[in-house]
Order: sequence, then structure tokens, then C-alpha cells
Amino acid sequence: MAKRRSLHYVTPQKLPLTGGADGQTRVNYDQIFDEAIDRLHTEGRYRVFIDIMRNKGAFPNARCFHGHNGPKPITVWCSNDYLAMGQHPKVIEAMENALHDVGAGSGGTRNIGGNTHLHVELEQELADLHGKDGALLFTSGYVSNDATLSTLAKLLPGCVIFSDELNHASMIAGIRNSGCEKRVFRHNDLEHLEELLSAEDEATPKLIAFESVYSMDGDVAPVHAICDLAEKYNALTYVDEVHAVGMYGKRGGGITERDEAADRIDIIEGTLGKAFGVMGGYIAADTRVIDCIRSYAPGFIFTTSLSPVLVAGVLAAVRHLKGSSEERDAQQAAAASLKAKMREAGLPVMDSTTHIVPLMVGDPVRAKKISDILLAEYGVYVQPINFPTVPRGTERLRFTPGPTHSEAMMDELVAALVEIWDRMDMELRKAA
Amino acid sequence: MAKRRSLHYVTPQKLPLTGGADGQTRVNYDQIFDEAIDRLHTEGRYRVFIDIMRNKGAFPNARCFHGHNGPKPITVWCSNDYLAMGQHPKVIEAMENALHDVGAGSGGTRNIGGNTHLHVELEQELADLHGKDGALLFTSGYVSNDATLSTLAKLLPGCVIFSDELNHASMIAGIRNSGCEKRVFRHNDLEHLEELLSAEDEATPKLIAFESVYSMDGDVAPVHAICDLAEKYNALTYVDEVHAVGMYGKRGGGITERDEAADRIDIIEGTLGKAFGVMGGYIAADTRVIDCIRSYAPGFIFTTSLSPVLVAGVLAAVRHLKGSSEERDAQQAAAASLKAKMREAGLPVMDSTTHIVPLMVGDPVRAKKISDILLAEYGVYVQPINFPTVPRGTERLRFTPGPTHSEAMMDELVAALVEIWDRMDMELRKAA
Repeated sequence: MAKRRSLHYVTPQKLPLTGGADGQTRVNYDQIFDEAIDRLHTEGRYRVFIDIMRNKGAFPNARCFHGHNGPKPITVWCSNDYLAMGQHPKVIEAMENALHDVGAGSGGTRNIGGNTHLHVELEQELADLHGKDGALLFTSGYVSNDATLSTLAKLLPGCVIFSDELNHASMIAGIRNSGCEKRVFRHNDLEHLEELLSAEDEATPKLIAFESVYSMDGDVAPVHAICDLAEKYNALTYVDEVHAVGMYGKRGGGITERDEAADRIDIIEGTLGKAFGVMGGYIAADTRVIDCIRSYAPGFIFTTSLSPVLVAGVLAAVRHLKGSSEERDAQQAAAASLKAKMREAGLPVMDSTTHIVPLMVGDPVRAKKISDILLAEYGVYVQPINFPTVPRGTERLRFTPGPTHSEAMMDELVAALVEIWDRMDMELRKAA
Repeated sequence: MAKRRSLHYVTPQKLPLTGGADGQTRVNYDQIFDEAIDRLHTEGRYRVFIDIMRNKGAFPNARCFHGHNGPKPITVWCSNDYLAMGQHPKVIEAMENALHDVGAGSGGTRNIGGNTHLHVELEQELADLHGKDGALLFTSGYVSNDATLSTLAKLLPGCVIFSDELNHASMIAGIRNSGCEKRVFRHNDLEHLEELLSAEDEATPKLIAFESVYSMDGDVAPVHAICDLAEKYNALTYVDEVHAVGMYGKRGGGITERDEAADRIDIIEGTLGKAFGVMGGYIAADTRVIDCIRSYAPGFIFTTSLSPVLVAGVLAAVRHLKGSSEERDAQQAAAASLKAKMREAGLPVMDSTTHIVPLMVGDPVRAKKISDILLAEYGVYVQPINFPTVPRGTERLRFTPGPTHSEAMMDELVAALVEIWDRMDMELRKAA
């Protein structure tokens, strides 16, 4: 498979120059920007953001503000608020209390005025979730990956990073910004990873960076086998668990908890904006690693810390999901049910061993059209996924059923998809 | 003056190797991390985060959780919630309403499920604030700078960026991550900037990046004169207004509004976490620039959008400060008063033409000690500012008086500082 994403997707173009009134040659900036946008339209991947408001207490129901007749009701099928914790009464109550107790924002960086007691408590809670000594909060999962990977590699002279080819854009950014050598291994391919590891010198610092659940295909990394290789070649391990924390493991510690592998991983990275329902990111690791990133990462140091309101909400969500598996079980049941219904209807649902339900379309224009019909005619909101989020030719619709999606909603969705598939002369493959 | 900050402040060290049980050479990762932390202790710049909780409705009063006798009351003198909007009733009410109407988080990226109607409204409000056609929200000011500068420069083939030597770490990161050529001009030095601009080819795309208010010294850029040079050499202009938005100009549009220069600037960048009291960042610019960054910047695309709760709070803060100058006026009066009191007492307050009141100490250990005494003995919280935030040898205390700091609080603060200055045998320079 071709490498999925690249940060270098801005194709260089011929520089447009014009003569100025004074006879000088002048760069035509407007034309450069216009051409950059035109390229997206030409490729059918210019993105239109759907303007919605979710209804707290009634997820996945929401209001859509598109069109001219005012807000109309829709059902959201593509949210990463996987467990609907964004409307959980404990989360809402904690945020309301913090809002009235502490106020809207933190007022500063963690070092200068923005370190509230809630931040300290949440870091302890997250460290405990993963069985680590320490944890560190960031403003987003993107920033966690970018700041941690780029800083780690700078602290390790001559470090080589081994990166799964399907790693998220934020990991790619962190690796790229570290300025160190990178070896990309084929997705979940242990032989290829070992081949690359064994080619490096024993005295070279090494870091293996991968995800536990890959969010666009819904498959899972062989965590233990990767750790075996890491031990054999003395490499550090970094795993992105953003699509797993809260959702796997008995306390929501992710795939590394489910597989009992957390103690073999050096750095676990997670998000507070998906299963935990709020916003932000973090890492959990050994105290010395946490202290290094805390002390050396510009993306951690020089930024206003998370609002205490958000931190309070996450604290409630993490604590709740440590003790309750009800939401996790309901999510797994919903995902299994939707996959079965799609398969039965002959829809090209992709193999996925997780809660993610991807439906292959294979063309950006068609994927957008299906999404548009679903929204306009059926009140179903599912965003088309196109390049650079997935490789060209594998454009898809990605459904994220959760504990609040009912069987009736799923039946309506599948019926709508079958009708559209027929209308657009796309093939349905009924099981024999 | 030496270049203030560098992202390369991680000194390379000799790689520690140990023999493994199997006779293999092995990198000792623990030792590398320990040494990185030891270097900070040795230099006296290991950072300890003070554990506090602000009291909504009573800023700048807060509780400090350090020590063993439970929370004790303190006064915060180093918050960037400059106008105390983090406790403004309109902001709190708007956030509470959004919390109950929409829920805790956005649930996705702007493109996939996370584009709420509140985000759309806030972008319109911010575009209007700066007299621009468009605006774009980011999860933080740091991310705004990093994502926008790195993407802009990639879209402009062969671009050269001209960067003020005192630019913030996030601008340095964005410029570095763009991979393009950088020319650093001496702080606010127009001659040096012109010298560098004139050395480049006419056909080379150029971008001048600077701040309006420099947050550690409190001085202001000569915006019009920089724009004159930009026009003469056909360069784009990018200004970071994070320490000015909400606080300068009749509607809080920043220094570019106060100086009537906004229409001469291509991209204005601001924060939602300082004067607006909440969290997040943004840029305001021409629609085509906004559309390019929206479509090409990984740091914008691949991240969960701001929580609608935060967005609602910021909307209320921006709208309030567009119509009210009361907070701005009170802040300026407080800053002028504190500077006068410090000067009168002979304390080495630095020249600052803005709301920022820096007090020079010149040594990291001493700055930390003064800060510790203020907290322990006087209940005054002001964080020492050390390298890499300011150049070595210019370590300082940085006070941010605002509309809620009373004259009595200032008198107490100045008396405490004079006592400590005496105790530590530091010189007081009484005016003649």
C-alpha cells in the first residue's frame, strides 16, 4: 500500500510574477493562494464544513444549520464522542461546578499562573489509568504527539524513529519536526519492522511509534509482538491510543490495558476529546520522561493550559469510565450490530475488529455525493473521508455507532444507504 | 542583544552506553533523561509549577495548595487573564448555556462532526473585530502561529521569512517547521529589516512576522513603518497580537486597530486565552488566505475543534469588549499606577509602554528566591521568568495588574518587594 498521508501534499507550482507600476517584478500572492484552492476543487476534495449543533441529552440527535429554512433535526453518525460522555450528567455537573468555582480559563501557561489543582489531579488520575508514574496534559492530542515526539527525539542524540506507515498526521508532524532520521514500516508488518531495526547500529537510540487502534480502518496493532522487537533491539516504544482510551480494557486504559501490555510501553499517548467527551490530550510515562517533556517541549511550555472547566469534565469522565463498562459494552454491541446489518444488506463494509465501521466508496466525488444525499434527504450526517486523511482511491464513509444509536436508527440508516447505492448504480454484494 | 530564544536549547551530550547481559552494547535511555533534568537543576532553572485555584468572582484572589496546611489565600499577580474576563458574568452565563444546550465537547474535527454553529459565529465576530473578510479558529495561540506560518511558507515556493529576534516560541516553531529560509532582524530595528529585505531577489516571496506587544518587555512594534517596508519590498505581513487583542483599540482590535493599521496587515493572529479570558487561538485575514490555511494546515485539519462551551464564552467576551472600554481603561490605570509606585520606591521596573510591568532581577536563582518569599510570607503569587522565556542574565518578575487589582493590593506588593530587596542586599534606586 502506498504511504497514506504526507505533510508535503502542497504541490509546488510555477511562481506567478507580474510587473509592478514601478517596473519592478512582483510576486502575485493572490494568484498563488487562488491556485492552491483551485487544485482542491479540481480534485473534488475541497472541504465544506457542515454547520451543526448537537443536542445535549439527546445525542446523536443534532440540529443542522445548512440551507435556508432554519435548523433542522439530523442524526450524527460520525462523531468521535464515542461513548456520548459529552452529555453525561457527571461530566456536565463537574464542568458547571468548575465554571462557578474557578472561572472560564486558566489564565496562563502551566508554569505561569495556569497550573490549577484540577490539572494536578487529572494527571494523577491518567497516570493511574495506565499504571504509570506520571502523566502530562496538552491542549490537544495533536499537540501531545507533535510536542512529545519532536522533543524526545531531540533529547536522544542520533535517534532513529520507526513509524508505522498509517500513523496519524500529528505523529508524522512530530517526527518530521524532530529533524531526526525516520524509517517507515509497512502497516502492522513485524517482519518489515525487524528488518529496519536490525539494519541500525546497536549504539543508535531507537524509538518505535505506532497506534493501537487505527481510526480509519478500525484495525489493531500487535502490541506485544512490537514490544518483543523493541526489547530485542533496545528501542523505546510510543503508542497513540486516542481511538482506544476509555473504550478498551476493564478501566478504559485502552488496548494496552486489554492486552496487558501497558508496562511494556514507554509512552502511552491519549486524547480527552473522543471517548472522554471533552477536549485535550496527554501522555503517561515514567516520571523522568514526563519531567523531560514538561521541561523541554516548547509546545507544552509556551501555551495557555487547558481551561479548568474542561479539566474538571475530563476528571469526571475518566473516573466514571474506570468504574463502569456499561458504555463500552453498549458501544461494542452497537458496532457489531451495524456491521452485521450492513453486511447482510450487501454494503461494502470494511473489515474492522473495533468500534469503527468504515464503508468503502473508493472515489472522492461519489463519497461526497452519498454524504450530501444522506444529509439532505435522510437527515443522516456522516462526513465523507477523503485524501489526505485516507489514501486516494480508498475514499469512504466512516460510521461511529455508540451507546445512544438505537437499532431503529441503524435500520433506517442501512435502508437509506441501500436506496442510494441502487440510485447511483453501485454494486451490492449479497452474502450467498 | 543575543537572540533570545532558541528551540535548540537541548544541548547534545555524550551518548551513555552500557554492555547488555548478552554482550550487546545498549543505549542507556534512563541516564540520558536524568542528565537532561540535571542540567536544569544545575542552571537553577528547573521549573516548579505552583498549584493554585483561582476564585471566580474574586480575581485576583486564589487558593494555593502548596505546603501541608491545606489551601491558603493568595493574590495572583502574573495571570494573563488581563481583564478578568474569565469571571465576567456574561462569559460564565454563555458557557453555562452552551454546556446545557450542546454538551461538553465538539466530538470531532472541524471537518468531521466538530463544526458547530458557535464556531461559525465566532469566526464571523473575529473577522469583524479586525475588519477582515474571514477568520479561523485553532485550539491555541501556539497552534495558530505554528500551523499558519508553517503552512503559508509551504504554499509560497522559495519563501523567505523575516522574523523579529524576540518573536514568541510558537512563531519560531512555525517558521522552523515550514522548512523555509529565515532572516532574523534585530528587535524592532527597521534599518536592519530593510537591509535584509533589500538583499533578496524581487521575485522571492517574502513574509514579515512580528508581534505587536512583546509580552516580556512590554514594548510595541512600529506597525506602520514595518508595513511601509512590506509595501516597498512586496512582502506579506503577519502580526501576533496575542498580548494586545481585547486590550487596545476602541473595540479591542489590538494595536493594529489603535494605530489604524489593520488594513495594511495580511494576517492578524490572536488568542482567546488572555484578554478574552478563555482558551484558543485564531487568525483573521483575506478569505483566500483563510481558505488556504483551513484546507492545507495539518495542525488545523487533524485536531478536535474547540469545545463549544469555550467558543460560547469567547463569543460573549469578544462582543462585550467590542462595546465596553471600561475594563481596558481600568487596566491601563492599574498598570500606570503600579509602575509609578515601583519607580517611586526605587525598584528596577523596566521601561514598558503597555500594561505589562516587568521588574528586572538579572539572575535565575535570585528571581526564584524572591518569588518563593513573596508566596510563602506575603501570599503574593508572581512566577519568576527565566531562560528560555527571556535571555539569560535578564531573569525577571513580570506583573500583570488589571481592573481587579486595587490600590491597597499594589501598596502591599510594593512594600513587600522593598522589604525583600533590603533583606537580599539588592540596590534600590530612589529618584533624585
